[in-house]
Amino acid sequence: MSDDARWLAATAALAARARPLSRPNPGVAAVIVRDGRVVARGWTRPGGRPHAEAIALAAAGEAAHGATLYVTLEPCAHRSARGPACADLVSASGLARVVVGCMDPDPRTAGAGLERIGAAGIEATFLPSPACAASLSGYLTSQRLGRPEVTLKLALSLDGCIALPSGESQWITGPEARAHTHAMRARADAILVGGGTLRADEPRLDVRLPGLEARGPARWVLTRGAAPKGWRALPAPTAIHAMDGVLHLFVEGGASTAAAFLQAGLVDRLLVYRAPVLLGGRQGIADFGLASLAAAHGRWRLAERRTLGIDTLEVYDARDLTGS
Amino acid sequence: MSDDARWLAATAALAARARPLSRPNPGVAAVIVRDGRVVARGWTRPGGRPHAEAIALAAAGEAAHGATLYVTLEPCAHRSARGPACADLVSASGLARVVVGCMDPDPRTAGAGLERIGAAGIEATFLPSPACAASLSGYLTSQRLGRPEVTLKLALSLDGCIALPSGESQWITGPEARAHTHAMRARADAILVGGGTLRADEPRLDVRLPGLEARGPARWVLTRGAAPKGWRALPAPTAIHAMDGVLHLFVEGGASTAAAFLQAGLVDRLLVYRAPVLLGGRQGIADFGLASLAAAHGRWRLAERRTLGIDTLEVYDARDLTGS
Repeated sequence: MSDDARWLAATAALAARARPLSRPNPGVAAVIVRDGRVVARGWTRPGGRPHAEAIALAAAGEAAHGATLYVTLEPCAHRSARGPACADLVSASGLARVVVGCMDPDPRTAGAGLERIGAAGIEATFLPSPACAASLSGYLTSQRLGRPEVTLKLALSLDGCIALPSGESQWITGPEARAHTHAMRARADAILVGGGTLRADEPRLDVRLPGLEARGPARWVLTRGAAPKGWRALPAPTAIHAMDGVLHLFVEGGASTAAAFLQAGLVDRLLVYRAPVLLGGRQGIADFGLASLAAAHGRWRLAERRTLGIDTLEVYDARDLTGS
Repeated sequence: MSDDARWLAATAALAARARPLSRPNPGVAAVIVRDGRVVARGWTRPGGRPHAEAIALAAAGEAAHGATLYVTLEPCAHRSARGPACADLVSASGLARVVVGCMDPDPRTAGAGLERIGAAGIEATFLPSPACAASLSGYLTSQRLGRPEVTLKLALSLDGCIALPSGESQWITGPEARAHTHAMRARADAILVGGGTLRADEPRLDVRLPGLEARGPARWVLTRGAAPKGWRALPAPTAIHAMDGVLHLFVEGGASTAAAFLQAGLVDRLLVYRAPVLLGGRQGIADFGLASLAAAHGRWRLAERRTLGIDTLEVYDARDLTGS
């Protein structure tokens, strides 16, 4: 990995601080480096403004002269009532170089940002960065597919169950795995469960982590009927295209809801929390109309595995979002 | 880990060569070490004789004088028509030390072997070795519980399925995982499937690995009826107590057979081959009467995880067989 790629990966890690409060804007991060040292940094503020580059440049001041800006997403080329175009700020900054990890698919930018910066005499480089693409996956999905990125969470026994035959389901995974789920909720814009799960478990779907209680995302239920107080109704998985300002949707089940999203081809990522128990009970995913085993293979790629207490978390990606 | 513990672990690894052809005797290994170097080694021959110690001592000859013998199981104290007691051979060997990794629960030995060796002026030590206990797990189970050690193999999708809703099941796991299964069969004395699996899949349950074709274990089917040609009938899981000369039983499913063994409390080890696919199909383990989630927890301990192609193998042990 080159130095530039390493700086982009570090910048992508910083971008996690922007998510999800930057919504509806992407959570972007920027780092200004001179002589191998960070002189300033920034990330998108809650509500989407100021942008990461504006914050980093303001913090750097004169120190930006001759420095390199690493930014996870191409600086925007469009002026808005809420602030100047970052491409203009960067052009006037005195920076020597700009390295971006993702091009912005927003048609108002889409290359125009880097072009304008290059025209200002600054060396402008796009270095495709998987870390940056991963940090922007919700935004990239939203721009490219016109819908939120969908993460399906499954908390399963070794034999793929979410409950005993009696329905008993609390708890299969341990406290570490459940705390991790709360952290994942805190990074989502919306959470969804099926009507059956809502009625059976009355889940709060809140974020029970100190300091993050206010991060609770919007709560949705998959139902053709009316939603209870405090919840919104989604009539079908395909209706996620109309979810306004939602970049990251976290689907928590149950089995029919998981199947509905899989059948619609609307699952981008799986989080599989696996407890070392056998249950012989109710399975976690209902029949979703898979035609053959050949159609099942090659769809999921293991992206990460970690131990959470006595449980294991595996993350599977449906496809490569870098577009490369 | 002490030097002695390391030598015992190495000796336990050698014992894999004895399994399963040593049956009905345990697959034992012995290594003779002098000045930090191996001067001789041995493992139980097919059919159970000669024993590992006899082979190693014969190979060492005069080199055994003043050396240390590492052996996975306490040398036998009983004479047999098939050979002398190893404790007598060892006592007359000129060895300086004997270190054993497991005591032999066979009442004809059960401490008498080490006592006799100690009485001959040889330093005789029992150093409990998890590696030795693992290598002798079938024998120890058979001696302590009067039945074979039972390994339940599951080849599952991420959501715990063994087939599509249509019944299509070949293949969920890839060639590396299936080859590993064949190697596991080659180490078993008997393999068992349910009647439904036998009728639906007509499994050969053979060992399709070059050089190991002759290792094919006895084939059993769980049925109250008659077994087809080439198979033997087991009327119920508890009938494994009457399986003669079987130290290692490998249960390959299907879902009802897995449940029957779990319900009887007769599964010692799980091999879970997991393919990165979702199926929404037929689940791998049927209802086995688990009363509560509390009863499910704490039963299985992850002993090993490895990658096999794009699949993952996890081995879970039901309990600690070292008895310590």
